[in-house]
Amino acid sequence: MGISENYGKLYFGELLCGEQNSICDVPGVLVGHKTLAHEEIQTGVTAVLPHGGNLFRDKVPAAVHVINGFGKTAGSIQISELGTLETPILLTNTLSVGTVSDALVRYMLRQNPEIGVDTGTVNPVVLECNDGYLNDIRSLSVTVRDVEEALNSASVHCEEGAVGAGRGMSCFGLKGGIGTASRVLEFDGVPYTMGVLVLTNFGSLEDFTICGNRVGEQISLDLASEEDKGSIIVLLGTDLPLSARQLSRVARRAAVGISRTGGLCGNGSGEIALAFSTAQYIPHESEAAVLQLSVLSEACMNQVFRAAAFATEEAIISSMLHAETVEGRAGNTRRSLLGFWP
Amino acid sequence: MGISENYGKLYFGELLCGEQNSICDVPGVLVGHKTLAHEEIQTGVTAVLPHGGNLFRDKVPAAVHVINGFGKTAGSIQISELGTLETPILLTNTLSVGTVSDALVRYMLRQNPEIGVDTGTVNPVVLECNDGYLNDIRSLSVTVRDVEEALNSASVHCEEGAVGAGRGMSCFGLKGGIGTASRVLEFDGVPYTMGVLVLTNFGSLEDFTICGNRVGEQISLDLASEEDKGSIIVLLGTDLPLSARQLSRVARRAAVGISRTGGLCGNGSGEIALAFSTAQYIPHESEAAVLQLSVLSEACMNQVFRAAAFATEEAIISSMLHAETVEGRAGNTRRSLLGFWP
Amino acid sequence: MGISENYGKLYFGELLCGEQNSICDVPGVLVGHKTLAHEEIQTGVTAVLPHGGNLFRDKVPAAVHVINGFGKTAGSIQISELGTLETPILLTNTLSVGTVSDALVRYMLRQNPEIGVDTGTVNPVVLECNDGYLNDIRSLSVTVRDVEEALNSASVHCEEGAVGAGRGMSCFGLKGGIGTASRVLEFDGVPYTMGVLVLTNFGSLEDFTICGNRVGEQISLDLASEEDKGSIIVLLGTDLPLSARQLSRVARRAAVGISRTGGLCGNGSGEIALAFSTAQYIPHESEAAVLQLSVLSEACMNQVFRAAAFATEEAIISSMLHAETVEGRAGNTRRSLLGFWP
Amino acid sequence: MGISENYGKLYFGELLCGEQNSICDVPGVLVGHKTLAHEEIQTGVTAVLPHGGNLFRDKVPAAVHVINGFGKTAGSIQISELGTLETPILLTNTLSVGTVSDALVRYMLRQNPEIGVDTGTVNPVVLECNDGYLNDIRSLSVTVRDVEEALNSASVHCEEGAVGAGRGMSCFGLKGGIGTASRVLEFDGVPYTMGVLVLTNFGSLEDFTICGNRVGEQISLDLASEEDKGSIIVLLGTDLPLSARQLSRVARRAAVGISRTGGLCGNGSGEIALAFSTAQYIPHESEAAVLQLSVLSEACMNQVFRAAAFATEEAIISSMLHAETVEGRAGNTRRSLLGFWP
Repeated sequence: MGISENYGKLYFGELLCGEQNSICDVPGVLVGHKTLAHEEIQTGVTAVLPHGGNLFRDKVPAAVHVINGFGKTAGSIQISELGTLETPILLTNTLSVGTVSDALVRYMLRQNPEIGVDTGTVNPVVLECNDGYLNDIRSLSVTVRDVEEALNSASVHCEEGAVGAGRGMSCFGLKGGIGTASRVLEFDGVPYTMGVLVLTNFGSLEDFTICGNRVGEQISLDLASEEDKGSIIVLLGTDLPLSARQLSRVARRAAVGISRTGGLCGNGSGEIALAFSTAQYIPHESEAAVLQLSVLSEACMNQVFRAAAFATEEAIISSMLHAETVEGRAGNTRRSLLGFWP
Repeated sequence: MGISENYGKLYFGELLCGEQNSICDVPGVLVGHKTLAHEEIQTGVTAVLPHGGNLFRDKVPAAVHVINGFGKTAGSIQISELGTLETPILLTNTLSVGTVSDALVRYMLRQNPEIGVDTGTVNPVVLECNDGYLNDIRSLSVTVRDVEEALNSASVHCEEGAVGAGRGMSCFGLKGGIGTASRVLEFDGVPYTMGVLVLTNFGSLEDFTICGNRVGEQISLDLASEEDKGSIIVLLGTDLPLSARQLSRVARRAAVGISRTGGLCGNGSGEIALAFSTAQYIPHESEAAVLQLSVLSEACMNQVFRAAAFATEEAIISSMLHAETVEGRAGNTRRSLLGFWP
Repeated sequence: MGISENYGKLYFGELLCGEQNSICDVPGVLVGHKTLAHEEIQTGVTAVLPHGGNLFRDKVPAAVHVINGFGKTAGSIQISELGTLETPILLTNTLSVGTVSDALVRYMLRQNPEIGVDTGTVNPVVLECNDGYLNDIRSLSVTVRDVEEALNSASVHCEEGAVGAGRGMSCFGLKGGIGTASRVLEFDGVPYTMGVLVLTNFGSLEDFTICGNRVGEQISLDLASEEDKGSIIVLLGTDLPLSARQLSRVARRAAVGISRTGGLCGNGSGEIALAFSTAQYIPHESEAAVLQLSVLSEACMNQVFRAAAFATEEAIISSMLHAETVEGRAGNTRRSLLGFWP
Repeated sequence: MGISENYGKLYFGELLCGEQNSICDVPGVLVGHKTLAHEEIQTGVTAVLPHGGNLFRDKVPAAVHVINGFGKTAGSIQISELGTLETPILLTNTLSVGTVSDALVRYMLRQNPEIGVDTGTVNPVVLECNDGYLNDIRSLSVTVRDVEEALNSASVHCEEGAVGAGRGMSCFGLKGGIGTASRVLEFDGVPYTMGVLVLTNFGSLEDFTICGNRVGEQISLDLASEEDKGSIIVLLGTDLPLSARQLSRVARRAAVGISRTGGLCGNGSGEIALAFSTAQYIPHESEAAVLQLSVLSEACMNQVFRAAAFATEEAIISSMLHAETVEGRAGNTRRSLLGFWP
């Protein structure tokens, strides 16, 4: 089809992508969606699991970076303090963060009978964007069961577009949603993967840019451009051995990728990036007082940053190229970018 | 009684306290509790309202400071970005943050039919400590209705001790809970109030200090001292005209008050301070592009900081002096400090 | 000439620029340069004065944002704490920050005999990039007198290109230096200006992009692309009434402008943005305890952010279009972008 | 003498101190002073070297925490980004930071001919307090040579009191200066040391507290109490294998120690803590892409925090107990605490 042909010619940096061009190219990473799509309800839940084991017992190094903080992400404070993630990452709509947090706590309690008895509590991590244009967000329609289904459906293949938490999202005045991409890096002869998953819900149509092409300006001849009131969540997973401090640096590079698509980091934007490394687990309880950890030399970070920035850029475009047109609340419609593709 | 006599002689700084020695001395501030106390369920919800009007439409300047981030507070990211608080502040146990956030969203949606339709979403603010020693925290017993009751019961009088979110909390190996205190300041002949409310759940008995007296060391002859695994939430409200930046500075002084009681800011502590000012409201929507705001001169901040530090210290001690002995989960008991008072 | 014709057609956002398209369009802002250009010495000092009065007595609200912190900026800690700037801003090469700080202290002491006697000290603000490719940076050739000359030469016209601190800087493998741009905004019928001055010293040639055009890729057919080891300083001045918190938000938008030119925020980059507002002064000593300040409504910030991002982008390109080819240390040469302009 | 007898009975936590009760108990750490004491000039320089080798080539993990940012510390931005320290740490008076930075750059250039030629630049770290009460700080009397002398005199013994950068400092209205202390910890049978060095220049006499005793209130019967306008620098060195993130946590515990002495973290205070670990070096250039590092298990941090807090508290008291009475600028005098010791 014409789309993929053209798409193949787009330039998103010099680095090669992984096998699926997906965050699931990072070994162990699983993604699941639960999509709610019924008339005025256009929303959902997306689950990203750094690994398929017990995340509470085998935590992963992680960091959160707030690009613009008009957002309601839960769980960032503890990640910043301890540098670890101990639950799956859940994405949903803004007003469902409470319910989804509660559901994630229940899921973790089931997996770990020692929580709240023999050990401390657990830090549920939930990120969000506001899908209120297409979704009746006031109906608070996401349930505990929806979260469980998203978690249970997690697999090594990541569906993109108007699915999961991306169901009701808008991006550059068109249909946004879930997008993913990956890059392969090599250090000392060992291959590593940087994967990105985005939940896109930001941007003014007039600013929309694909690989330097101000595509949005042309489309806006047909479609009115509105003020940017949106948000974006960027998850960056990698099997590179990065410390929490280094992951914080990686998370900050998400902003480069966003800017390359024409994002201008609006006032109302909840732009949050979360990066994690699956290279080694941090045990909940360690017998040894001193752990031996591998850490990438700082001099190698330039390549890692390029991978993060370009994969973020591509994942955003990919979220739009995979999203179908959706009609939702009050007859509001977001058209697919595909309809404008040459 | 001997207690109050002795207590009256304790030195918590040179500043006078307000009429009730309570955060409710700050005009407009309301506090409500819902206490769950039934066998293994020893927990609850505390609501602090900066004012009794519509907080979403009339926001208040606010700031959050993380002293130690082993905590699950919700809502801090947006406060830091925008410098405003737009909901009541709710306190509860760690694993109920999701449910309480959800309940707070429902409460705000009822008050504001425009949320999610004609305007954006809302940022629920919920802070927590882990009451798992006395409370069966895994039972997730706090309900949406409990939150409503806490909110609806809010009044200009703040009950202290083993009530509301403080029901199951432990402090220095004794019974902790809700405490409050206030200080009166005067600038240019105008009186202002700094009020503090704490949820205390931290400290090792051996370190417990009242006004320089290492009381805990003596008590520990009778009662074993355990490792500090606790947390503390400090809310600081004032009618001083402070900017979000200045409120952030005020919030940081909570740590001084905590240290003065023997707190050592342990690894597992979620120590979070949130400060707000009721001096002027920030409208959700403003007709004028430029607002006129009053701001305290920075040179006056020293007095404000002293008020914040000493009121925090006193509120912590007060939380313990008001808390009765509580027996809860698995027969675990936390004894009241009163039992050891000379 | 062809350059300006082409340049005129470039798109840097929909907002109009000020009269000079310069940070000096912000009323009161002055810029001065001292250029050292003699064989292996290719460096200098640039001074930006928010206003021509006594900055110590009449401070301006300000904020610093660190995009990537591989840098040696002096003075940021106090700006972040107090939200004010109390000296001119000086730019120079990395290893001269100490000397330039010392010179700035001397300048401030002369202006303010009360410093260190009747009042506290002063916080000199100096930012830098590493011009070691063209400049013998080890010679530490900048003197106290050079700083004085930069300060004394400050005027309402800002020279651009290979001047002042920009003398030895490289950008995208070509000649960088000082660039400036401005945007005009209107709120409630009142015009305001956002001005930007950049010191450009970052980027890989292959990534260099002008308004979406990957110009650098073409140039790199003639000129080898190197790894990005550079930095950029972005100063944003405005007469909009912005609080320190709001200025921090503005400073963060510099990253958008940098990304739009192909900057990827490399590991070795000292990318620092400093924003200030000249709308109102904060007195060093105030008789009144409560100050009355004007503050822009947060809802207007979107336009301000667009102005900051696009002016940053244009200022970077402008720094290169104004910079002549310079030969310096060890025969190293950085060619002017003009030589490759169609 | 009675002093040491009494002093020996003071309680600064349950942990044992190292052999010298000094930061020099941490293997490899060296401290040097250059004291300027001549009439109105009462100031100096203190150098702390994490190890005696080439710090630029063998960096140490480090972190900076700003307790209150009314200060002019140089070098913090890069430490926060990269998590490493690559120069000795220098302490001096506020207005000499520029000269001392310049001197430190010169020292590093001499040691490392590759800086600015084959590799990047260097990040000089200089911290300060304002000694303007006793010292004619406007005279800018510290020279490059003074810095060299401080560096060259560095040894495994740390002199305390009115020496080096501490010469002109005031603490709680009495004579402050340099103080040090250490604590010994054991994990998995291996002993480690936490060392602290403070530069004390803060506090109101009325608040001064030694181990819970409000000593200052008694002294203030003889000596007027003034408003706190001071600062404190806290350096924490250890041979524990801590990451930069963990060191940031350690640095934050300095505030606990300060509070225990009666410090209230005043508006005008530059309270900065810097922590470093000598357990392993981070090479400036690494052949391997992946480094193997030891990291202490987070569960052990509680003990580390206690060591940091109590050693800070003791170092502050020690700085005062070692400081003689000094008369300086304009006949101003700061009396030694020893004169009031029972």
